[in-house]
Amino acid sequence: MEPICALATAPGGAIGIIRISGDQSLEILSRIFSKNLTAAQPNTIHYGHLIDKESNPIDEVLVSVFRTPHSYTGEDCVEISCHGSRYILQSVLDLLCQQGCRMAGPGEFTMRAYLNGKMDLSQAEAVADLIASSNKTTHQMAMSQLRGHFSSELSQLRDKLLKLTSLLELELDFSDHEDLEFADRSELLQIAQDTDAHITHLAQTFEAGNALKNGIPVAIVGAPNVGKSTLLNALVGEERAIVSDIQGTTRDSIEDTIQLGGITFRFIDTAGIRHTDDQIEQMGIERTFAAIAKATIVLWLLDKAPTPSNLADMQQRCQGKTLIFVQNKADLNEKTAESSLFPQDSSLIKISAKYGAGLEQLRQQLIDAAPATTDSDVIVNNARHYEALCRAHTHLLRVIEGLGAKMVNGHWETVDSILSGDLLSEDLRLTLDTLAEITGGQITPNEVLGNIFKHFCVGK
Amino acid sequence: MEPICALATAPGGAIGIIRISGDQSLEILSRIFSKNLTAAQPNTIHYGHLIDKESNPIDEVLVSVFRTPHSYTGEDCVEISCHGSRYILQSVLDLLCQQGCRMAGPGEFTMRAYLNGKMDLSQAEAVADLIASSNKTTHQMAMSQLRGHFSSELSQLRDKLLKLTSLLELELDFSDHEDLEFADRSELLQIAQDTDAHITHLAQTFEAGNALKNGIPVAIVGAPNVGKSTLLNALVGEERAIVSDIQGTTRDSIEDTIQLGGITFRFIDTAGIRHTDDQIEQMGIERTFAAIAKATIVLWLLDKAPTPSNLADMQQRCQGKTLIFVQNKADLNEKTAESSLFPQDSSLIKISAKYGAGLEQLRQQLIDAAPATTDSDVIVNNARHYEALCRAHTHLLRVIEGLGAKMVNGHWETVDSILSGDLLSEDLRLTLDTLAEITGGQITPNEVLGNIFKHFCVGK
Repeated sequence: MEPICALATAPGGAIGIIRISGDQSLEILSRIFSKNLTAAQPNTIHYGHLIDKESNPIDEVLVSVFRTPHSYTGEDCVEISCHGSRYILQSVLDLLCQQGCRMAGPGEFTMRAYLNGKMDLSQAEAVADLIASSNKTTHQMAMSQLRGHFSSELSQLRDKLLKLTSLLELELDFSDHEDLEFADRSELLQIAQDTDAHITHLAQTFEAGNALKNGIPVAIVGAPNVGKSTLLNALVGEERAIVSDIQGTTRDSIEDTIQLGGITFRFIDTAGIRHTDDQIEQMGIERTFAAIAKATIVLWLLDKAPTPSNLADMQQRCQGKTLIFVQNKADLNEKTAESSLFPQDSSLIKISAKYGAGLEQLRQQLIDAAPATTDSDVIVNNARHYEALCRAHTHLLRVIEGLGAKMVNGHWETVDSILSGDLLSEDLRLTLDTLAEITGGQITPNEVLGNIFKHFCVGK
Repeated sequence: MEPICALATAPGGAIGIIRISGDQSLEILSRIFSKNLTAAQPNTIHYGHLIDKESNPIDEVLVSVFRTPHSYTGEDCVEISCHGSRYILQSVLDLLCQQGCRMAGPGEFTMRAYLNGKMDLSQAEAVADLIASSNKTTHQMAMSQLRGHFSSELSQLRDKLLKLTSLLELELDFSDHEDLEFADRSELLQIAQDTDAHITHLAQTFEAGNALKNGIPVAIVGAPNVGKSTLLNALVGEERAIVSDIQGTTRDSIEDTIQLGGITFRFIDTAGIRHTDDQIEQMGIERTFAAIAKATIVLWLLDKAPTPSNLADMQQRCQGKTLIFVQNKADLNEKTAESSLFPQDSSLIKISAKYGAGLEQLRQQLIDAAPATTDSDVIVNNARHYEALCRAHTHLLRVIEGLGAKMVNGHWETVDSILSGDLLSEDLRLTLDTLAEITGGQITPNEVLGNIFKHFCVGK
């Protein structure tokens, strides 16, 4: 493909790396370098100086040579390690463009790696996730995806579906023989149901994966003036939110994050979702409904025991979420907020004296409430992948229904087979194609590729 | 030396480069890499993954191997090209430190290159200048110094001084023979004077070199309200200074720079050096004395012809500087500020209508007034070098005086030789040692090295 170039490092360091990839990469480089590298061995490093059109030296550099197909992009590639002066980096890029390179777009090197079969599309997406990873969990998910663990799960799914297809085609080949039964229907059904369970399991990891990737949403809720901003500040460790004794001080929506145990927690600020009705404001619950709806973990900050109706209301709203009761100002209110008022399976954390005490326990509770992951888990954390899995599931359900089963209230029930083999084949093909979208096994439209790679850094 | 590591690129890009240098570099790397590179060939690149103590993959990376003495530092070196995630970069540095590396200090790799004889001290200093270079001129000066042009001039000086020393020692060897004359005194004197002329020439380039490196100081002076801030803004191209019609608006000292023709011009803001005496203020000259004293180029902004005494005063103050007359509001005052009032060799630039006209001409005048340099010029732009040259000159003057000549009003006059050969030798040795400080040929105290390298980036 046409040669492209870009700065692959952030500007401003001691060293800057400029990448070239594509046809004639080595010829172009050799025209501005003190040595001719057109015959250089792959994976070798060469010291010399870059020269401009008037033969003035631009920089003393190291040039790394990579040759197709053993390079990041799969094409001939060159990496120039320059001194990190902006003047030098700009001059070198200008020279390369004068010699026939084009400035690369965001993610264009990785897109070429995908197009040249060096990685599948989900691995290419993992590259951007890896560069953006800021803690152990996001790093682990991106590395797992880059190393092909997700691709390998998809490949297993594909194998099962191909087996199903071939069995079905065998059946269709014999369909002229009216005396032959649909002999393997039960086996076909079993394979289809197993495969669907696998797809469903992967799709179900998305909620946790998305939370781990973007930060687990935590709502701090409670009556006005109970100390929500102070708690947030204590957890974040900085004076981010404006704290004062004036009720309703928190006006700007600030999303703070903290890293605990290698996991990002994202606090949903409750400002901006308050009601103007004073009575509701006093209850301190209504204004937090929106925050609770968005949260995975709810910290309910109390300075006195909740009324039974408030408690019941909160528990109802927090179904499927983790609700942590936090007794604030525990030093001032030792006799209020008795544990007996709270359900047995909830823990009440007492924090006090501007949270000098109890914070560590609270942090541990947050970590415990986060989805647990291990290195070997495949966790879907990309909305595009999740959406494709859901569509594949829908197609596969039609196959299963054609084979005589239907999901009713989470259980399979037998139904009359209503689809012909031809239609089953069509739905199976749609299932396969939809899964293939994830890894890009099918021809991927340019528009889709553009959307995927536009969020990359330039130079990657 | 002990192994050191550092991030050599700015954080935040697609790629981050981590450098290791010192004993056991390859052993340390091999302990956290998927391949054993202890026997790897020099100047080769290896693909693999970094692993932590629990054998979890940290990143897929390229490792470049360099072997002593053919590396930047002269030691065994490794460069790891990682994905630019801060989490990854930090994890890799942590791993390296666990395996026995120490985090490098600022400029420590370059200091080792110097200590290991890969470059002299002036070349090491040029590395920092090269990284900091922001335009063609500063880049050119740094490249010239890095490529050893200055070192080569110093080497020529050293050769001349060594020749002088050996001739002198020959003389001393024969000093027992009272019948032998100081035969080559005139030749010795000629060599010493030539050498001093060379040193003096180099030292004289410092004013221009320093101005080119740090920006050529330009003072915009003129009566209050004549439009100095507006002119500055027009030249800088941004609304940096506060402009209003209220006299004396410019209160904060703002140093703006512009790049013209690959040269940095640094504007000296005249606020803060005004007098409170109103009469002097009205003259609009007194308040600018300090700015003029600091400037190389003075832009005198006028909206009417200066009085002969003001003109004479300004010309006297601008001796040795470039004085450019700028007629502001030329559209309003067509009949004032006639060119005839100005000296023949000065050009009057008319600018008007908030400087839509005339600015280009003014920019060209600034470029013309800047010191001209060519690629082959050696220009001293480092205060440490300048100071050493001045001291060498002082020592050499004593040698010359001992040989019978003295500089009087810029000319050599014959004096009686007052120094013995021994004393001449001592002054010659001091001259040589002082010049050697520049390239670090002598043993350089740690304190001096610390001062030189502390301004470097970490990782270089």
